[in-house]
Amino acid sequence: MKELTVKVPAEKASEYRIEIGTDILSSVWPKIESQFGKAGKFIITDANVAKAGQLDKLVSGRNVSSYVISPGETSKNMNILVMIIEAMENAYLGRDTVVIALGGGVVGDIAGFAAAVFKRGVRVVQIPTTTLAQADSAIGGKTGVDSSLSKNAFGVFWHPSAVYIDVATLKTLDDRQYRAGLVESVKHALIADEKYFEFLESKLDAILHRQADVMEQVAYQNCRIKAQVVEADPTEKNQRRMLNYGHTIGHAVESASGFELLHGEAVAIGIVAAGMIEIEMGLGDDKRLARIKKLLTALGLAVTIPAKISKSELADIIKRDKKAINKWPRFVLIDTIGRVHRREGQWAVEVKQDVVENVLGKL
Amino acid sequence: MKELTVKVPAEKASEYRIEIGTDILSSVWPKIESQFGKAGKFIITDANVAKAGQLDKLVSGRNVSSYVISPGETSKNMNILVMIIEAMENAYLGRDTVVIALGGGVVGDIAGFAAAVFKRGVRVVQIPTTTLAQADSAIGGKTGVDSSLSKNAFGVFWHPSAVYIDVATLKTLDDRQYRAGLVESVKHALIADEKYFEFLESKLDAILHRQADVMEQVAYQNCRIKAQVVEADPTEKNQRRMLNYGHTIGHAVESASGFELLHGEAVAIGIVAAGMIEIEMGLGDDKRLARIKKLLTALGLAVTIPAKISKSELADIIKRDKKAINKWPRFVLIDTIGRVHRREGQWAVEVKQDVVENVLGKL
Repeated sequence: MKELTVKVPAEKASEYRIEIGTDILSSVWPKIESQFGKAGKFIITDANVAKAGQLDKLVSGRNVSSYVISPGETSKNMNILVMIIEAMENAYLGRDTVVIALGGGVVGDIAGFAAAVFKRGVRVVQIPTTTLAQADSAIGGKTGVDSSLSKNAFGVFWHPSAVYIDVATLKTLDDRQYRAGLVESVKHALIADEKYFEFLESKLDAILHRQADVMEQVAYQNCRIKAQVVEADPTEKNQRRMLNYGHTIGHAVESASGFELLHGEAVAIGIVAAGMIEIEMGLGDDKRLARIKKLLTALGLAVTIPAKISKSELADIIKRDKKAINKWPRFVLIDTIGRVHRREGQWAVEVKQDVVENVLGKL
Repeated sequence: MKELTVKVPAEKASEYRIEIGTDILSSVWPKIESQFGKAGKFIITDANVAKAGQLDKLVSGRNVSSYVISPGETSKNMNILVMIIEAMENAYLGRDTVVIALGGGVVGDIAGFAAAVFKRGVRVVQIPTTTLAQADSAIGGKTGVDSSLSKNAFGVFWHPSAVYIDVATLKTLDDRQYRAGLVESVKHALIADEKYFEFLESKLDAILHRQADVMEQVAYQNCRIKAQVVEADPTEKNQRRMLNYGHTIGHAVESASGFELLHGEAVAIGIVAAGMIEIEMGLGDDKRLARIKKLLTALGLAVTIPAKISKSELADIIKRDKKAINKWPRFVLIDTIGRVHRREGQWAVEVKQDVVENVLGKL
């Protein structure tokens, strides 16, 4: 018998810059050129974003290879990923390629995953154009596509090399998507910052009118909160789990709706479910939950499970959750608005299956 | 305009153990259990390996979920990957899962990739059962599957958590595969160790008779050489490129043959092509190339491009190479047996397209 040990050296720390502004899209390309030089660029976007003129603003007449996917979660699948990678191969792109994700969460997730797996990893720049992506998915390095069974069943952690947030792109977003995406902002406030929750409550009108200066502040607070959490635990061993507040049941509701519900719409229901679990477990009260429901409702979001979703299917999907251990996931809960409940150092805690099923029954 | 910087912390260094022995397969499972405890296990293997009894030896009657792919490079595609991931989801496996790759290079590559992307990354144990996988693919963390255009178009670096090499598994390998896989041993000798090259020349009979003590030494030398290179440059920024000796043209020949040629058979041709390029560039002579060809021929390998492969197609495939910059890859060349040619600190150097095309014409 012989044996050897292979040492895998530490990977160096790195960092990336997030720039937030209004009407900055047409000035982004020179910045990308100055950061990456002559490296091949490949843009991934969706038909709505292109139709809204964002792609034209970004490239301003330059000749850049791009791939335009159909809008919506159903595009986040392995067939589209294969087509994207083969398009990149057909453009003879090399290991120095920079993928540029221009769009919402679906575009960012699939483009990030494509960058992570193309030739064993190339760089990606995220240019989020939706409330969801600007608040959440464009930063933090989560990438992935869905399987026929669950969301983000395929994926890796792959951090962007730069992020550009232009809140002017939100102007062309349809109202339903705009509102649904704001749920991630509510989530950030709930887990990390009561003052930010009050800010959202007080600036509701400006937010719903997509007022640029307020939306820059919203983007900044979201990035600040998310960056802190991700820096502390980039690969979600523990603390980063707090970002899944409302998401365990939210993801399941989203899947069970056949993606008729938008991600944020489903997470709003998940946040209310978390609030009900908190009450069951003595961590919260009706008054706090009513305050949260009021904000979500003011954003135009439903706070109950649609009648056509089967609750037994929901429980089955929850068992398949990425975070599941022994077929039941842990849940993120809050002690107060702005502070996550921790038990024995864990940011996601055990909740008995019957407590969850009981809450689902009432939702 | 607002800006933030997100810090991505360094990833810790890690290490993994390689155990090499004869008839150790049936004693591996308790070691896996002791390393990983109750975490869910999922075995990926192929029908030949299962038929040869290796899967039974490994599990020894235990009830373990497994997925058996068809043998051969054509299984290394995204459809099979999707089926593997969905099988893992249907087994309700969590983030603590350990994927166990039992088989050759195809099994190791696809299982490693499946582990890397399942729920954003779970652990993998490599148990290589072929000369190719024991020499090369099971260590070093390269994973991937092919696109319709090129090999390993999809992939990531994902290091195993343990490697078990049982040279007794080589006994059931068919002769063609056995011989082809030895080419990676020849490659290791050529790039790193002249004494090992002499060892291979002198032990040819024992090697071809699959004599266990000699094959343990071969496995050990391969792992030693590869581990050194990988430790110095895990993600192939420069030095690790030396492991691609013979592979740039080899991969292209393999693709152009529609995978009728085995990987090692194609790399043997690629090694000869590298030798011819070395002569053209004044780095080698006919005598050295003749010595290399003699060893490859003694292993039963062809050293010319099959007539039915189109040479213009070859050049086109080379342009798509993962390592290509501006549509033409760099090449690894040697100064002498055991030492890679370096130019300006680079382990892969520029070779003009007409020099390569000239060599292809003569091959």
